[in-house]
Amino acid sequence: MNRKLIVKIIGTILCIEALCLLCPLVVSLLFRSGDLYAFVFSAAACFIVGFPLMTCFKVDKHRLQTRDGFVCVALCWIALSLFGALPYLFTGTPFADAVFETVSGLTTTGASIFASPSSLTRGIQFWRALTQWMGGMGILVMVLALFPSVGQGSMNLMKAESPGPISTKLHPRTSETAKILYTIYIALTAAETLALRIAGVPWFDSITTSLTTISTGGFSVRDESIAYYQSEAVYWIIIFFMIFAAVNFSLMFFAVRGRLRDALKSEELRAYALILLFAVAFISADLMIETGAGLYQAITDAAFHVATLISTTGFGKSDFDLWPNFSKLLLLLLMFSGGCAGSTSGGIKISRIVVLFKNLRRELMRILHSRSVHPITLDGMRVEEETVSSVSVFFFAYIAILLLCTTILSLDNANFETAFSASLSAISNVGPGLGGVGPTRNYAFFSDLSKLTLSLTMLLGRLEIMPLLVLLFPSVWRKK
Amino acid sequence: MNRKLIVKIIGTILCIEALCLLCPLVVSLLFRSGDLYAFVFSAAACFIVGFPLMTCFKVDKHRLQTRDGFVCVALCWIALSLFGALPYLFTGTPFADAVFETVSGLTTTGASIFASPSSLTRGIQFWRALTQWMGGMGILVMVLALFPSVGQGSMNLMKAESPGPISTKLHPRTSETAKILYTIYIALTAAETLALRIAGVPWFDSITTSLTTISTGGFSVRDESIAYYQSEAVYWIIIFFMIFAAVNFSLMFFAVRGRLRDALKSEELRAYALILLFAVAFISADLMIETGAGLYQAITDAAFHVATLISTTGFGKSDFDLWPNFSKLLLLLLMFSGGCAGSTSGGIKISRIVVLFKNLRRELMRILHSRSVHPITLDGMRVEEETVSSVSVFFFAYIAILLLCTTILSLDNANFETAFSASLSAISNVGPGLGGVGPTRNYAFFSDLSKLTLSLTMLLGRLEIMPLLVLLFPSVWRKK
Repeated sequence: MNRKLIVKIIGTILCIEALCLLCPLVVSLLFRSGDLYAFVFSAAACFIVGFPLMTCFKVDKHRLQTRDGFVCVALCWIALSLFGALPYLFTGTPFADAVFETVSGLTTTGASIFASPSSLTRGIQFWRALTQWMGGMGILVMVLALFPSVGQGSMNLMKAESPGPISTKLHPRTSETAKILYTIYIALTAAETLALRIAGVPWFDSITTSLTTISTGGFSVRDESIAYYQSEAVYWIIIFFMIFAAVNFSLMFFAVRGRLRDALKSEELRAYALILLFAVAFISADLMIETGAGLYQAITDAAFHVATLISTTGFGKSDFDLWPNFSKLLLLLLMFSGGCAGSTSGGIKISRIVVLFKNLRRELMRILHSRSVHPITLDGMRVEEETVSSVSVFFFAYIAILLLCTTILSLDNANFETAFSASLSAISNVGPGLGGVGPTRNYAFFSDLSKLTLSLTMLLGRLEIMPLLVLLFPSVWRKK
Repeated sequence: MNRKLIVKIIGTILCIEALCLLCPLVVSLLFRSGDLYAFVFSAAACFIVGFPLMTCFKVDKHRLQTRDGFVCVALCWIALSLFGALPYLFTGTPFADAVFETVSGLTTTGASIFASPSSLTRGIQFWRALTQWMGGMGILVMVLALFPSVGQGSMNLMKAESPGPISTKLHPRTSETAKILYTIYIALTAAETLALRIAGVPWFDSITTSLTTISTGGFSVRDESIAYYQSEAVYWIIIFFMIFAAVNFSLMFFAVRGRLRDALKSEELRAYALILLFAVAFISADLMIETGAGLYQAITDAAFHVATLISTTGFGKSDFDLWPNFSKLLLLLLMFSGGCAGSTSGGIKISRIVVLFKNLRRELMRILHSRSVHPITLDGMRVEEETVSSVSVFFFAYIAILLLCTTILSLDNANFETAFSASLSAISNVGPGLGGVGPTRNYAFFSDLSKLTLSLTMLLGRLEIMPLLVLLFPSVWRKK
């Protein structure tokens, strides 16, 4: 294990976090929101710990192996979460709550312990939004974009942090890939900010909402979330960008590069489009039949909530916890799948689900035509058996963690619906759930044990499980 | 595909069902319960359809391939279910209810649409219990035991019908294996009948209860289920036999043959014992803390419900739907796992879960020690990669069907807890669930669509999914 390089990267990450903390600091100055000290101290703490770590070792070996990538990503995210909680701690939030809110931000979950986000100070509001934007594309991807010379094998960092079963190389050099991804990410955020501003949303709201849309985070500065704006234009702008943010960013790159037709051929994209279409159709119909909603109203409501849950953003418009059971259940299923691999969304990812269904089909073919095993293909390319196996393992681990988290939450005497949907929401990085954690509720009522369990589950979800589980092996910690 | 042989086997199965129907017929005669005609007509119908099918073709090829085994098992179970519903239909039960009750019987689920089993006629009561006993060890296994000369490759029938990822051969000849299994099955049923009789339970109750315990079915002739007997001795006898019925029957054979030490080394058995122990400990503690129950009372209650749910029997003693959420959730987890492979219990089976965890561990090792892949072992024997893959596919299919069934039930406006636990109960062949299908409730309130969906899910669970899914391929139906 290349410990020295890992420590150096953790130090770098903390320094970047210090820089990020300067943004809410500036916001605090601009709005004189009275929370300046929290960001000064937090940024200082990040820098005081981060800078020595970044510089203390003379790194002689610049090679990162697969396991180094996983361990490094896991430790970086833990460090980021703990230090990112400082502004909340300095403004009087208890420890478990502060950690929960930070992890919920960085992992782009968007579950909150604050009953009234609108009454938070401007600095804290901005920090909440920014943590989501930092976590959305990934902070190590940012490191790779900023410092191209991290080391050989930096692809392993990207693989461990980026969501999805297969990483696409957009450029032979990892740092270039990282730059391309961040360019698209920034462009989308800017585009949404402008669109919202034009639709009449104030600048501060436009910026923070865009930061949390493109990262599929879902924090809002308003207590009523997006329902506050009461504007069809705003709803549809946000629906559009949520759907977009859950598309594989590589495809957008191909589209920009004039290979739109190739991009549209993606099986995952087609499955995503089909799921969107069917979900909106079924839920609109159910709402019209069961609640007597009008066609346009039903479609807007359905589209907004399908988009917000499949992209795992979690913005609120209506209280879907009051919807008919069939619609609620479809929304819950969307929380399992999440969006496309290589996007900022959470969940299992549609490409994995496609592979799982193809693997089931192959198993049946194997029974029918004794032992003739054909490789599974995706977009015409063969999926390695190792990848198929990893996808299956991931699915099992995902369900196991979901059930384990549900069990621990039930110790709080949360009922099954609440405990299960809160856990699902956490591992898929969505935000709201059903029942006690429905879209109009918050997570403040949970015990500290539950809050920390949910925080861990959110991290497991965002990092796609394996990096954190690897830390459980003693051999990672043992000196050779 | 060996169509002629498959048709012959279906015919044979129906003739056996006709013979089985003679048992409740005799019961009806003995008790003069007034439902004689139902069994006379049903047995006649089975025979009139079955006998010609059994004899119409001259089977020239006696070889059954893997797919023949799967297709044959699926079709036999569908035929069994439809014809087994006749006695209910003749006594005035509507179609969907009759199918539901029969499938719930044959698959050893034990979910019922009857609010008061005690007010059913004796003949019907006996038929309910007998369907569970027929389905428990498997009706095709019975065919193999009775007609050793079914054909070459009869192992494929056994593989498709017996639960678990790996079939153990107890004897080089399949028919001998089938005989051994049925001998143990009959011996256990007789032992429990005697034990219950000695404990003061009437003969009729002893026999029917034993038929539904050893098959891990859970139908009772009493409205209060086992709680009716109000006897600690009865509770513990049933706990003991439920736990026993969920153990791999092969291990019992080894134990009888003097290889007890080998049997006790089984990893699955050890995992099963550990799960039992921990579940009883946690639930007893929870009951004592949250409901103030005394130690003995808490342990009896916990042991009974842990045994009834992990073995997927589903007998009732207390209304666990009123228990604290943590205990309810642990019981729900037991419904996922079920008992051991090669037993009569349902669920995913513990050996599969052991393999899934070992596969997860291997994936993590692969990340840590780049690409060194060790085979997974169980009881010191290498598990074929194909089996590992099948186990993963099974797990995915199981969860997918569970969620699909939940979705369809939610169309009935069943809430999440009810729809999910009813579906889980169906696919794991348990019986009771939570909420609207809690242990004191029944399934009568569901719509016909839901009842038929649940019936299909129970069949999918009992046959471990693949045989029924194979039928969806057009190539099965096409003439070559």
